[in-house]
Amino acid sequence: MRMLRSSQADFETAFSRIVRDRRESDVQVGRDVAAIINEVRERGDDALSDYTARFDSHGLSQDVDWQIDLEECRAAYEALDSDLRDALETAAGRIRAYHEGQLPADRDYTDDIGMRLGARWNAVDAAGLYVPGGRAAYPSSLLMNAIPAKVAGVQRLVVTTPTPKGEINPLVLAAAHIAGVNEIWRVGGAQAVAALAYGTKRIAKVDVIAGPGNAWVAEAKRQLYGVVGIDMVAGPSEILVIADANNDPEWIAADLLSQAEHDPTSQSILITDSEALARQVEDAIDLALMKLPTAKTAKASWEAHGLIVVVDDLAEAPALSDRLAAEHVELMVDEPQPLFDAMRHAGSVFMGRHTPEAVGDYIAGPNHVLPTGRRARFASGLSVLDFMKRTSFIDASAAALAAIGPAAVRLAEAEGLPAHALSISTRLK
Amino acid sequence: MRMLRSSQADFETAFSRIVRDRRESDVQVGRDVAAIINEVRERGDDALSDYTARFDSHGLSQDVDWQIDLEECRAAYEALDSDLRDALETAAGRIRAYHEGQLPADRDYTDDIGMRLGARWNAVDAAGLYVPGGRAAYPSSLLMNAIPAKVAGVQRLVVTTPTPKGEINPLVLAAAHIAGVNEIWRVGGAQAVAALAYGTKRIAKVDVIAGPGNAWVAEAKRQLYGVVGIDMVAGPSEILVIADANNDPEWIAADLLSQAEHDPTSQSILITDSEALARQVEDAIDLALMKLPTAKTAKASWEAHGLIVVVDDLAEAPALSDRLAAEHVELMVDEPQPLFDAMRHAGSVFMGRHTPEAVGDYIAGPNHVLPTGRRARFASGLSVLDFMKRTSFIDASAAALAAIGPAAVRLAEAEGLPAHALSISTRLK
Repeated sequence: MRMLRSSQADFETAFSRIVRDRRESDVQVGRDVAAIINEVRERGDDALSDYTARFDSHGLSQDVDWQIDLEECRAAYEALDSDLRDALETAAGRIRAYHEGQLPADRDYTDDIGMRLGARWNAVDAAGLYVPGGRAAYPSSLLMNAIPAKVAGVQRLVVTTPTPKGEINPLVLAAAHIAGVNEIWRVGGAQAVAALAYGTKRIAKVDVIAGPGNAWVAEAKRQLYGVVGIDMVAGPSEILVIADANNDPEWIAADLLSQAEHDPTSQSILITDSEALARQVEDAIDLALMKLPTAKTAKASWEAHGLIVVVDDLAEAPALSDRLAAEHVELMVDEPQPLFDAMRHAGSVFMGRHTPEAVGDYIAGPNHVLPTGRRARFASGLSVLDFMKRTSFIDASAAALAAIGPAAVRLAEAEGLPAHALSISTRLK
Repeated sequence: MRMLRSSQADFETAFSRIVRDRRESDVQVGRDVAAIINEVRERGDDALSDYTARFDSHGLSQDVDWQIDLEECRAAYEALDSDLRDALETAAGRIRAYHEGQLPADRDYTDDIGMRLGARWNAVDAAGLYVPGGRAAYPSSLLMNAIPAKVAGVQRLVVTTPTPKGEINPLVLAAAHIAGVNEIWRVGGAQAVAALAYGTKRIAKVDVIAGPGNAWVAEAKRQLYGVVGIDMVAGPSEILVIADANNDPEWIAADLLSQAEHDPTSQSILITDSEALARQVEDAIDLALMKLPTAKTAKASWEAHGLIVVVDDLAEAPALSDRLAAEHVELMVDEPQPLFDAMRHAGSVFMGRHTPEAVGDYIAGPNHVLPTGRRARFASGLSVLDFMKRTSFIDASAAALAAIGPAAVRLAEAEGLPAHALSISTRLK
């Protein structure tokens, strides 16, 4: 953990370095991923079978090995402890309600020259969701990715997930049942992403691929962007907590650790105008780490990337926050609105002392798939729009074409595109 | 040009092959582009200067060589023939009006448990527009890219354009003046895209890069996606004309040629239920090509990629159209609405006999930057949203947290994320 004061002489240099530091994997996965994509494109299911045997240690020799039956998902759902089932249902219901409010309106109007203009939204036909295996197989992620697709109106929602040694988290299956997933394939890694993008004999291709994954999965999505739509390029995640003196240090410590426990590359940052709170939070983190089951990961993250910035006045915080453009920003003050109004770049903002970031991870309703690594400067969280596309339309009457056609002819001629001009002028005769 | 009948035995095979054919450059530009990006990242303006001398044959030795003064844009605008100036102004005004209607509404509401939820849209701080040099330097493209950025609220709008031997199209400068561009840099190619993404000493970096370009520019945008936002991956463009018997073959021929004259890789497709119209259009194209100044390009495109599909019934057309997911679809019938209603995948649709595609290229209002190469299955045309991003927010009262916090704690514990659970439970004590 590092502590900086905004008043110190080298603050600008030190803070700039932190803003530039992308904390991203140095692994040269690009070439490996390109080779895997090529293999899947050429050898299809045989390549999937080979990679699955090698990476996930299970065979795909028989038909039943490939897919998880939707009945298994229903069974996993029904076998859940009722408290947990209710919690998943509450989360799903709230996520659904929030995302229904994102559905875009079509446009259709006739303007002053009598030209009808507009745009119509449609869902994509099919979407693929990558669901990681092992410890990162989170039912909450499945809900956050699948529900927007279903709210958008996607008819075919396909999950691919690695099942190391054949195993899968039953909570993920239960979440798939709740979300209405249509197919679940037991393949993972870059090979699963390639199969979703190009299709194989068994797995029909999709139009959009979403969902978290390791560096190989992320690189495969990046390389296949354009062949399919993708949700975003995701990197290590981060939280920025902006807190005044009047906070319980244990609350703030828990919030910082909730990010740190995800991964050693996660980043937790506190900006406060209270040197005393800064010290107390530091101590509270050390104390909490002594009993936290995820202490190993959280400690590694906090030590390598943790940061406390002490400012003279919290009014300095929004500008610093905009430079970090963090995935999650907590405003732990009595009146968060003025701070929020002064900020421009953040994935999601958690306002007020009773809004820990984790409530947004699970149950508040807005999506927890958010832009990381300073990408909130230009990117947004996952939404129904990621599973939809817009078709614009133009309907010109003869009179409307007569009104503006001559100007278009002039422009086409000036650009040296005579067939463009002709297609209009021939209708103006 | 190829003619198919939907009734012929091998139609499905032949049509599938056309749907799969991406018509994209085989040039292995990936490695070259990666090297250029790396050079610009490491050597900054020196690299830009070297590449500009090599590719564009002009020096960047003095400060005045780098930028085009905005006063030059004003002068170019004022020197325009008044008809052409009026045409550009009419186009700009209509494009602006259409895109203003795209501005998204913020959300801010309090739900039934007393939790305030919402989302706020902001423009990105800075956007870069690539403007090709030479014959593809179209003022209409500048308007279509720049106006949505300005309507979105982008404060710093930066154009980069190659100026081979120092030359630039004055129409482009005039369009930049109308659109309110803030900076124009005389650099092009992948090196310009790299400079926009990473920044150099002279050129401050941007958040989003839009605009058309050659294969190197497109590949640079693809490689830098994630470092910055990009508008889309663009490929060769296409038009699909769906026409009944009751059409003037010269109109349809002009429409098909207006796409073909762009580039030898462009594709023009006619679907009609009239064998007679098909023949007449074929003849009209041959005739038009005899006098068209752009005949060389148009002929190459039509011969290599032109296609006429004769169907028994136009009701077959929407399904074929959806498989092509064409950038532009013209519905040349008296009642286009039922056909439009039956379609799902298209970049933009031109409805009725008096709506040639070219009217949309210049002046109707909707954007002419549209998804190509079947990407309308998942992508949309350029819009103000490409220059904006959304920040979601959550504001929980103590009571709201008490209502749903316990369910979130349960989920966090089930996912093995105890600090997540703690950040909520510590507030519920």
